[in-house]
Amino acid sequence: MTPEQDPLDSLFDPRSVAVVGASANPEKWGYWLASGALAGRGRRAVHLVNRRGGALDGVPFLPDLGALPSAPEQVVVAVPPPQVRAVVAEGLAAGARCFTVITSGGADAEAEQALASLIRGHGARLLGPNCMGVVDTTSDLRLSWGDFPAGQFGLVSQSGNLALEIGRLLARAGQGFSRFVSLGNQRDIDATDALLALVRHEPTRVIAAYVEDFRDGRRLGRALAAAHAAGKPVLLLTVGGSAASGRAAASHTGALVSARATVAAVCRDAGAVLLDTAGEVVDVAACLLAARGRAASHPAAGNRAAGAARVGAAAPPRRAAADTGPSHPPASRPRTAILADSGGQGALAADACAARGLDVPPFSAATAATVAAHLPPGAGCANPVDLAGAGEADLATYAQLTRALLTSGEADAVILTGYFGDYATANPAQAARETEVARELADAATASGRLLLVHTMARDTPALAVLRQRGVPVYERIEQAATALSGLARVRTAQLRPPLPTPPPSPHRAPDGDYETTRDLLCSYGLTFPAAEFVHTADEAAAAALRVGYPLALKAMGLAHKTEAGGVALGLADESALRGAFARMTAATGAHRYAVEAMATPPYAVELIAGVRRDPAFGPVLMAGIGGVRAELLADTALALAPLTPDHARDLLLSLRHAPLLTGWRGAPPVDLDAAAAALCALARAAAEHPELTDIEINPLLVHPGGAVALDAAAVLGQSSLRAPRLRAQCVEHQPDDQE
Amino acid sequence: MTPEQDPLDSLFDPRSVAVVGASANPEKWGYWLASGALAGRGRRAVHLVNRRGGALDGVPFLPDLGALPSAPEQVVVAVPPPQVRAVVAEGLAAGARCFTVITSGGADAEAEQALASLIRGHGARLLGPNCMGVVDTTSDLRLSWGDFPAGQFGLVSQSGNLALEIGRLLARAGQGFSRFVSLGNQRDIDATDALLALVRHEPTRVIAAYVEDFRDGRRLGRALAAAHAAGKPVLLLTVGGSAASGRAAASHTGALVSARATVAAVCRDAGAVLLDTAGEVVDVAACLLAARGRAASHPAAGNRAAGAARVGAAAPPRRAAADTGPSHPPASRPRTAILADSGGQGALAADACAARGLDVPPFSAATAATVAAHLPPGAGCANPVDLAGAGEADLATYAQLTRALLTSGEADAVILTGYFGDYATANPAQAARETEVARELADAATASGRLLLVHTMARDTPALAVLRQRGVPVYERIEQAATALSGLARVRTAQLRPPLPTPPPSPHRAPDGDYETTRDLLCSYGLTFPAAEFVHTADEAAAAALRVGYPLALKAMGLAHKTEAGGVALGLADESALRGAFARMTAATGAHRYAVEAMATPPYAVELIAGVRRDPAFGPVLMAGIGGVRAELLADTALALAPLTPDHARDLLLSLRHAPLLTGWRGAPPVDLDAAAAALCALARAAAEHPELTDIEINPLLVHPGGAVALDAAAVLGQSSLRAPRLRAQCVEHQPDDQE
Repeated sequence: MTPEQDPLDSLFDPRSVAVVGASANPEKWGYWLASGALAGRGRRAVHLVNRRGGALDGVPFLPDLGALPSAPEQVVVAVPPPQVRAVVAEGLAAGARCFTVITSGGADAEAEQALASLIRGHGARLLGPNCMGVVDTTSDLRLSWGDFPAGQFGLVSQSGNLALEIGRLLARAGQGFSRFVSLGNQRDIDATDALLALVRHEPTRVIAAYVEDFRDGRRLGRALAAAHAAGKPVLLLTVGGSAASGRAAASHTGALVSARATVAAVCRDAGAVLLDTAGEVVDVAACLLAARGRAASHPAAGNRAAGAARVGAAAPPRRAAADTGPSHPPASRPRTAILADSGGQGALAADACAARGLDVPPFSAATAATVAAHLPPGAGCANPVDLAGAGEADLATYAQLTRALLTSGEADAVILTGYFGDYATANPAQAARETEVARELADAATASGRLLLVHTMARDTPALAVLRQRGVPVYERIEQAATALSGLARVRTAQLRPPLPTPPPSPHRAPDGDYETTRDLLCSYGLTFPAAEFVHTADEAAAAALRVGYPLALKAMGLAHKTEAGGVALGLADESALRGAFARMTAATGAHRYAVEAMATPPYAVELIAGVRRDPAFGPVLMAGIGGVRAELLADTALALAPLTPDHARDLLLSLRHAPLLTGWRGAPPVDLDAAAAALCALARAAAEHPELTDIEINPLLVHPGGAVALDAAAVLGQSSLRAPRLRAQCVEHQPDDQE
Repeated sequence: MTPEQDPLDSLFDPRSVAVVGASANPEKWGYWLASGALAGRGRRAVHLVNRRGGALDGVPFLPDLGALPSAPEQVVVAVPPPQVRAVVAEGLAAGARCFTVITSGGADAEAEQALASLIRGHGARLLGPNCMGVVDTTSDLRLSWGDFPAGQFGLVSQSGNLALEIGRLLARAGQGFSRFVSLGNQRDIDATDALLALVRHEPTRVIAAYVEDFRDGRRLGRALAAAHAAGKPVLLLTVGGSAASGRAAASHTGALVSARATVAAVCRDAGAVLLDTAGEVVDVAACLLAARGRAASHPAAGNRAAGAARVGAAAPPRRAAADTGPSHPPASRPRTAILADSGGQGALAADACAARGLDVPPFSAATAATVAAHLPPGAGCANPVDLAGAGEADLATYAQLTRALLTSGEADAVILTGYFGDYATANPAQAARETEVARELADAATASGRLLLVHTMARDTPALAVLRQRGVPVYERIEQAATALSGLARVRTAQLRPPLPTPPPSPHRAPDGDYETTRDLLCSYGLTFPAAEFVHTADEAAAAALRVGYPLALKAMGLAHKTEAGGVALGLADESALRGAFARMTAATGAHRYAVEAMATPPYAVELIAGVRRDPAFGPVLMAGIGGVRAELLADTALALAPLTPDHARDLLLSLRHAPLLTGWRGAPPVDLDAAAAALCALARAAAEHPELTDIEINPLLVHPGGAVALDAAAVLGQSSLRAPRLRAQCVEHQPDDQE
């Protein structure tokens, strides 16, 4: 392999392919793989193998890989599972560099892992097993089943059927695939490997992935950020949004389903767009593909992607130069102008946009006047624009007004909604004129550098074909257009914060998760707690109280749920109260050790809750939210991978629905956000460096104008540490394509 | 008109029609109206009128309505606005009973109202002006422009283009229109009239409406409830979900846009489904049409519709007999079984359902075993079911498993998602078998009395045509299927609470909206406030305090924002504190009158906020929500028309996100919900009987285990009272078709 070669060239563009298990029967997978491989004969040597002989399209089946005239760079394996290992051994002996295993690779996961080890031990790569194959329409490689129309869309999927569904929807949108990688059981090449290969692949312009099992989630997070930085944002589908989908995924590939909220946080910080359905993926992809030709239309001036790592050969997109500074997120809502055939359609379009976070601002008087000049009296000119019959009266009005809105400086995108595209259906005499106007619409978009989206009642008309050919996305439903534009907005306003490296574990392991231990640990990371002493007897408590100062809190140690067990007494005003509480607490809990702690009642304090949990794929995840007795009802929390930067922590707090409580609610002074962010960062780092704790929580964390103080904390000491490294251990070799 | 006749027969099935402004030019409206009218020649006399002469399809244009050989029952007016009044006068002289005015009816709203009065004065009716006409495919009446395929879907719309869009989507779903009424400016026949006519129309099985201007919103609410009770739930689209859509509606018809939240509350209480887009309407309609044949599948046993008024000749749907009692809403989440071709599609389907409030429960072991018997080892059997290739291996598996799930007793509906419908595309040899299985699927649904929905990657294949023909709704996207099923769920779990009659205004008008006045008013309706006396001087205050009892509150009267102005002092413990506060308050506010009021600090109290505002169309609307300083951030409120029943008020409180606070949060005793509901009812009735108050608010309303006490209240005295009666005055005559 020469240094210039892509490490996955053997997968996507092998000089030779052998299909083992080839068949002449169109009801067999072996037929589709063989005939697909043969379609690439102009570019590479294709060998078909079936030990029972036969032929397809004039190509005879050879008995085994040993009979090949030259080494097969890629071997596609479609034989019954018990034969897979022998075929792979044969292929390795013949010098194969890559195996795509369609059938399951063995009796169990161990057998599959052994197969992967065998292959990697020879320096070769494995796709699958239990996958649907690989397609690269740019290298005439079609080693899969189903239609894969050619285009600029790269897909990585753990579900084959979903890929077929996406293919159908893409084709209807006038788009197709550059590459498709079916991941199967990911015993070697995983979602991240495949994504990075798509980022490096110049003809791939937009990337989507369906992933159930994230493996090393942090590595995936970095790959997503790299994709965004390279101008190829990833549209991600995953499961785990409901208990039922978790059941489905578990039965499907035995994958560990990561909590969707964690995936959503990773996507947000990596500039990826987490979506819900195949249809949404195709809708947003069409918009992103259109947007690639419209670099000037970036609605958000400040984008931190400039600082993110770039990957591979793909040209990075042009970015606006100005960085708005570390603590000001970029403007987030693209201004959308709506041009409708009717008031009703315009109004519903406006609501669909607003519901998805898009801004539909009223036009300036000057723009409204420009619009009005094209329209009959009484038509809506303020945004939405209501053509009120003007389009019907003269089709040129569509192009004139679209151009006016695209160049008004008051809209980042225009949605044309309603009838356009369908005139030729009712009146074939209008077909030529309508396609001409379609060209004008597309030209107006291109010239303006801004985005035009068309929602139309029509389906497959010549005018719509012209629009699609010229890069104007066309949608059958207004909600699809609005979803597409909001997906683009998420990409453009993303603040890239790829996962930070996980620090090495601290040599000092926490012996338990009790308050005293957790408090000491967190204090060593810089968190503030009220002054406290730890005592065993009432006399010791009384003596400590004189140093700590009344009023104070008494807490029993060594209890899992100390409040519920009667192990907490607050606001003890004097020694008599302290001794009374001590006696009652001892009787109730039998505790041997107690904290005598100062009461913290800073004015204008807001109760937060903060914790770190370990996700099997993503490792330690920080949760910050509004605390207090109603915290569960508020359900106002935000997540980020730990550790994180103070800026990130600050933005996390400001992303809460109740963030106004922190910034000066109803005349109160704002809380010390820097102190709050520092506390979150300290907690995150403590958790990341102490993998022996599976769970740490501070509740409440009082944040106030003068700082942040933790009033209680606890941890859970786990049996194992992170599960992610264990999973990751399946791919122990250095990943030369990783770029990290 | 005989008593048996529908009062709108002249609109939907006139014995004769005259089109004034007929044209032979296909680019003119007059052509489409005339040729549409001629299509109904087999059923009625059709006259075409154009003063310049001409002919269409062999029918000569007559010079004016006076030249007709007999009276035209309906006259369609498509002449320039200045000529409309003269044409109408001619038509009235000729004995016309109904006018459909396509063009705008005059220079302004007043001219249009005068036109309506002229027509109503002759006992005739007016549709429009400024409308797109009327279609009744069951009476061969096509007095509009555009395609209106025949079917069972009735549409009432203030937007013509939206109707065309819905028609296109309906046709793709294999459905069509029974009736379409374009409302235009609603100068006589309004949305409610048209809806009620659709309820009475037997061939209309499902009804949708796009309404911007609700006119008498309460009458509309009663019509929606009547439609639900008649088994024809209304799918409603409206605007006002964003500021931009309000602009669109305002420019379109000059309609007053009612706040969408109020419309949503009215729909909820009338069993109507408020949706967002044309596509959603068609998706839900297809599901409702399928469900009409599946009466046994009602997922919710208890439905109060039995007590609601029934309207017209339509057969009411069968309802389960048991009423679960006044304060227990019926079970609300239909159990959905998902049958998928792949784990990925099944998982995404489950998430799409869960996101829309549907339940995707795991199957019992017995059902899972039944499923497993049809599938290869390792396939998902628990819900979602993952066919894992079994469908591909034998198409019969689709029907077998669908039947098993439909009859399992563990699902109210089955969604089949994935590949089915597309086998014939890849392999034409499978076409016959696939359509056969499609028939088996439809038969299984019919036999089970439960619902089957199909999401497919295919589009227009023979198997899908069979499914649609046999009443199985087919969707291109899984989110559409999930939205459809959730719409059906909303219909089936609705608790009908049509608007109560607005009580007559009280003869005692409130002189102002100050605390003292509002408190007296609300006390007279039964609300509880703390003991108080109203005084002018510090000495009077001190004397009153002895009767009221310390600690107490002092409040200055006559201020718009007394708290901000320094006009409230709380927790005054003794006379010295009271006199100090009095002096400071007098200095700060200059007030002349003060309340000396007991402090109410009941334990376990929850702060609510409650108010009544007047909606232009819907009249007084009660708002109840969680109060306190964070109320704005919580934004946890619920609306209902005032007045309302105690049951309704109680359910409103229980519908809040924070309802657990009221029912015993974290070990606290539950609050007195009956007292809280009674307080809301009293407030609602007070507001309804005092239209001179445009706004009343109680904030906070403390609800606690021992009752409910209002701690503050204020009102706004308006210039006018309700705007709704003013609007309603446009239609002063008794509405014989109203059925109210």
